Amino acid sequence: MAYNLLKGKKGIIFGALDANSIAWKTAERVHEEGGTFVLTNAPIAMRMGQINELAEKTGSQIVPADATSTEDLDKLVSESMKILGGKIDFVLHSIGMSINVRKGRHYTDQNYDFSHKGWDVSALSFHRVMQSLFKADAMNEWGSIVALTYMAAQRSFPDYNDMADNKAYLESVARSFGYFFGKEKKVRVNTISQSPTPTTAGQGVKGFDGFISYAEQMSPLGNATALECADYTLTLFSDLTKKVTMQNLFHDGGFSNTGVSQEVMEKFQ
Amino acid sequence: MAYNLLKGKKGIIFGALDANSIAWKTAERVHEEGGTFVLTNAPIAMRMGQINELAEKTGSQIVPADATSTEDLDKLVSESMKILGGKIDFVLHSIGMSINVRKGRHYTDQNYDFSHKGWDVSALSFHRVMQSLFKADAMNEWGSIVALTYMAAQRSFPDYNDMADNKAYLESVARSFGYFFGKEKKVRVNTISQSPTPTTAGQGVKGFDGFISYAEQMSPLGNATALECADYTLTLFSDLTKKVTMQNLFHDGGFSNTGVSQEVMEKFQ
Amino acid sequence: MAYNLLKGKKGIIFGALDANSIAWKTAERVHEEGGTFVLTNAPIAMRMGQINELAEKTGSQIVPADATSTEDLDKLVSESMKILGGKIDFVLHSIGMSINVRKGRHYTDQNYDFSHKGWDVSALSFHRVMQSLFKADAMNEWGSIVALTYMAAQRSFPDYNDMADNKAYLESVARSFGYFFGKEKKVRVNTISQSPTPTTAGQGVKGFDGFISYAEQMSPLGNATALECADYTLTLFSDLTKKVTMQNLFHDGGFSNTGVSQEVMEKFQ
Amino acid sequence: MAYNLLKGKKGIIFGALDANSIAWKTAERVHEEGGTFVLTNAPIAMRMGQINELAEKTGSQIVPADATSTEDLDKLVSESMKILGGKIDFVLHSIGMSINVRKGRHYTDQNYDFSHKGWDVSALSFHRVMQSLFKADAMNEWGSIVALTYMAAQRSFPDYNDMADNKAYLESVARSFGYFFGKEKKVRVNTISQSPTPTTAGQGVKGFDGFISYAEQMSPLGNATALECADYTLTLFSDLTKKVTMQNLFHDGGFSNTGVSQEVMEKFQ
Repeated sequence: MAYNLLKGKKGIIFGALDANSIAWKTAERVHEEGGTFVLTNAPIAMRMGQINELAEKTGSQIVPADATSTEDLDKLVSESMKILGGKIDFVLHSIGMSINVRKGRHYTDQNYDFSHKGWDVSALSFHRVMQSLFKADAMNEWGSIVALTYMAAQRSFPDYNDMADNKAYLESVARSFGYFFGKEKKVRVNTISQSPTPTTAGQGVKGFDGFISYAEQMSPLGNATALECADYTLTLFSDLTKKVTMQNLFHDGGFSNTGVSQEVMEKFQ
Repeated sequence: MAYNLLKGKKGIIFGALDANSIAWKTAERVHEEGGTFVLTNAPIAMRMGQINELAEKTGSQIVPADATSTEDLDKLVSESMKILGGKIDFVLHSIGMSINVRKGRHYTDQNYDFSHKGWDVSALSFHRVMQSLFKADAMNEWGSIVALTYMAAQRSFPDYNDMADNKAYLESVARSFGYFFGKEKKVRVNTISQSPTPTTAGQGVKGFDGFISYAEQMSPLGNATALECADYTLTLFSDLTKKVTMQNLFHDGGFSNTGVSQEVMEKFQ
Repeated sequence: MAYNLLKGKKGIIFGALDANSIAWKTAERVHEEGGTFVLTNAPIAMRMGQINELAEKTGSQIVPADATSTEDLDKLVSESMKILGGKIDFVLHSIGMSINVRKGRHYTDQNYDFSHKGWDVSALSFHRVMQSLFKADAMNEWGSIVALTYMAAQRSFPDYNDMADNKAYLESVARSFGYFFGKEKKVRVNTISQSPTPTTAGQGVKGFDGFISYAEQMSPLGNATALECADYTLTLFSDLTKKVTMQNLFHDGGFSNTGVSQEVMEKFQ
Repeated sequence: MAYNLLKGKKGIIFGALDANSIAWKTAERVHEEGGTFVLTNAPIAMRMGQINELAEKTGSQIVPADATSTEDLDKLVSESMKILGGKIDFVLHSIGMSINVRKGRHYTDQNYDFSHKGWDVSALSFHRVMQSLFKADAMNEWGSIVALTYMAAQRSFPDYNDMADNKAYLESVARSFGYFFGKEKKVRVNTISQSPTPTTAGQGVKGFDGFISYAEQMSPLGNATALECADYTLTLFSDLTKKVTMQNLFHDGGFSNTGVSQEVMEKFQ
């Protein structure tokens, strides 16, 4: 069902990798709600066949950009305004990658070159994106910037590795930059802390299936899906949430505020 | 602008006192978005002239109920289902009152009979409302229950008095009941922690104008208005936020995550 | 091992029920560290044989007081100052009781008379104790007031029932009264959020053994014992923590910031 | 006054720059309480005249180490065990530096090379220190690791710049590594979130004096001094806090949980 919630709004969506990804679902839902946007991804991460399909389906153009390159991001911002015919109303940052995870390095045995790279891609990139937007004065007043994050930023999950610390940095950037974007441009900045989601990216994490099942049994409403996350993101892009800013918003079926569920307890009795 | 966001949804709205109140604005906005509802208030608090006007404008019926009376609440629930022709999709709890505040009792000089009464009206009432709904199996699956609260539940504001503690209790009830409402009925329960708002009720608090001005200068986006709070509430009633539950959601222009603003700092330099 | 950490300090300890209770262990450790104190408990809860033994062992006197009676508390404060020969340096509030739990009423089927009584005993009592101390100007500068609480105030634990909401209120009272006690008397007020502890009181909660085992496996350092909680309380009573106030301090082996442990995950794989 | 609280305990103290610094005060207090330790600092940051004085006064040796060099840290750990004659009981990490701050780059105009370097020094260094300790199995059971942080990790302070995000990362590292250090070595890891403190390092931050004054008027007990922070750190190094881990502990006179103080409000009325 569509409400025209984003009619006339223009945006940039990072990280639509394939049909499992939250950014992909968000792009589809934004399109249904009347928004237009540019799709972007790291040149190296793009699966062109797939993202072309999404671009076609949603009438979007693709502008590749390495989120660790200020030059690329500056270009992305200026091209996006050209393509969309004006300033930006919404941005989704859905970027994350840990080389320590990929290479199987335990959290107590990190390779710090990997840590640097992972932090740059997953955390600092959010600052870079916002700084490019800010300097170009590219956001419309009451625009909305959202990044996806995970609760490992608050609590330890043994297999989440250095992504936990990267997400903590990312959430802090949302608050820090949110202050200035609010004061000077009337733009809001928030993060959504999403349930573990069986995206292609998430599947790299060790023991992910067991973890999904644990989270499902801990969450009173069950895990939130990628599509539900897309729906929630729409509300944050819409004009109905203009005064929500600098927040980390849990979208997790209640997991974050459940100490233990009956189902989990039963395994210990 | 209306989106038909709540088309076909049925609800109960507590606490529409007069045109300044958040519940009043919410009722108007829900009506615009296609929802239908019953209005309710304590018999003693009702300003019949005014609430009749709202009822007429929104095509609603009024069912008075004392939120400290389980009997009244049970009746309200069953009558509402009768009036609306089915189960309930959304509920707004906007009830609060401190006799210690009204009678000018300082927080360090409480009259505990007043404390009891204020807690019953402001905090326990939220449990009572949900217990009546739960026992009557009155909520539709994926329904949404929202209560309004204030950040004094997390941090001390010298003039907020025992309402701070009442709001902390209320927010806890949202989590505690949210667990069971989620597991057993697929219903979500959240609280919105709103900017200080110049409602008729809020004006009773000592030094309120100075406080509004302080909050305005601390909040990167400025204070959230009653109408903006109504808009935000709509998103929580809608189908776009189905997996958000047991959360306390700050709707405050960024106040809650601002340590200090430039404007406030300047008064100390 | 003793450090003379509380040499010369005078206090009041509520809630030493029997040798399993945290307050009992705290009394023993305070005595070892050179502090003197009055023991108090509700007349109805006192197991005279046992508390007499503790009083003898620690050279203390017992002053019964119903923590829901301002009159009793005022008397307790004035008698304590007489017995101890001066103002008070430390207070431990370890009081909690839910009639809904005792009577087996589910959280969604509360008897509200029980809720009122449980809140008065478990939560409002902390305000009453502090108001009696504040009005009598009974606390020395840089004195320390501590109440025990549990993490159910932040997250839902299905069997913790209305004690969750009572603890949320109690923690809020610590912040609200802590503000005034700090500003006007240079006294600090904190709560310790302790691991589930196999005290006689705790054993009333349904499924408690399973829960202890779950918490043990979730906590990287294991559950904190009653004796360890007593030790931690000493640090908050000492002169080494003068600027810690209005805080809720988790003493739980890391449970509160563990999203999931390896041991718990293994049950889902 | 001394309690012999750390008698027989061995440690490493990072960051004792000069007599204003918290690490310096901590070294003095640890010495008074019977602990022995190695002092360390970055070769480039060492003011040899001054740190030699501290070393002499406390009977300590100095081992320079660049906290961004794993090689240096590995050496520091092995040399410290040699000097102290056994494993380590306590570690203080008090390291932080932002080149963006030093060079006057606004938060919305960062030089990302500076961001990388500042993050490496201020945040990742905490991981490096712990990884070196962990791999060398250098910590005694029930040892304690503490890092200093600031509340800008939770809330935006306009002049704190990228140190806010670095501190958020640091606090996350405490939780993430705390999980493994707890499970596998029975070692606790915590951060202390300290009042703004007029150290030599802190004075680089723009508008720092006004900010100190603001914090003083917001905090019910006033700002915590460097010496008080040293005292608080002692409690975390002692055997009295064995089950406190993965926590961020506010040591700030109540600032963190004060929404507004009467004194601050008066400027707006």
